[in-house]
Amino acid sequence: MKCKLIVSFFLLTAGFTAFSQEKESRKSTGKNTAVVEKALVKVSIMYPYAEGKTFNMEYYETRHMPMVAGYLGSNLVKYTIEKGLASGIPNQPLPFMAIGTFYVKSLSDYQASIGPNRDAIRADFPNYTNISPVILVSEVVK
Amino acid sequence: MKCKLIVSFFLLTAGFTAFSQEKESRKSTGKNTAVVEKALVKVSIMYPYAEGKTFNMEYYETRHMPMVAGYLGSNLVKYTIEKGLASGIPNQPLPFMAIGTFYVKSLSDYQASIGPNRDAIRADFPNYTNISPVILVSEVVK
Repeated sequence: MKCKLIVSFFLLTAGFTAFSQEKESRKSTGKNTAVVEKALVKVSIMYPYAEGKTFNMEYYETRHMPMVAGYLGSNLVKYTIEKGLASGIPNQPLPFMAIGTFYVKSLSDYQASIGPNRDAIRADFPNYTNISPVILVSEVVK
Repeated sequence: MKCKLIVSFFLLTAGFTAFSQEKESRKSTGKNTAVVEKALVKVSIMYPYAEGKTFNMEYYETRHMPMVAGYLGSNLVKYTIEKGLASGIPNQPLPFMAIGTFYVKSLSDYQASIGPNRDAIRADFPNYTNISPVILVSEVVK
């Protein structure tokens, strides 16, 4: 478990520079500037549901996410939190207990901001969950 | 595969009325009305990546999602589309190729709108993907 948690936070260092640069150049074309979120990068930390897994939403909302958001500076456009309620498919288990998402302008800047704070973020994990998250880096299409 | 696709669309009929009613009552308290999205229900159709899976984003963005959105009327607050780029964890596969999300006021109204159009939606599936989606019903916390 501990190993998995550590691995999870290597996202902070890996090389998504190429993606980030693509976003930067796209934004500079000025296309669709009316839609603020379009072409932003989303980093979604997704907590899969499974038997015996726990998640303290109150702590996550009031302590953990504000802490991480505080590291991101002006690169952070917004962040969102959602609480999983059910699968949309009958007789299927809940896919995710929670998802936290950072909308950022630059993924490389995100990584540069998070890197020095990795230990603090990692140490806060057991305060709200025993789940190893799945992390999706995606592009806002619409 | 076909069976799985059919099962996927039973989301349109299942009973999330309880969740929906909870949202309605919460909204009526007027708490946090400044944050428009808070307490909305999200229905996220998530397309897992796997070897051999395909996804036509252009068709999804210009044809499929507008079609489904058109069924939802004033219950639909907005919908979003994101394109998966990478896992945020090194050496892990991309979790999802794409995610489409409907933000609605009422889940029961969503189901009532989609139900009569289930066949049309189902028939459109093979036009853009061979993936059986995971569907998450969640609540906007922040």
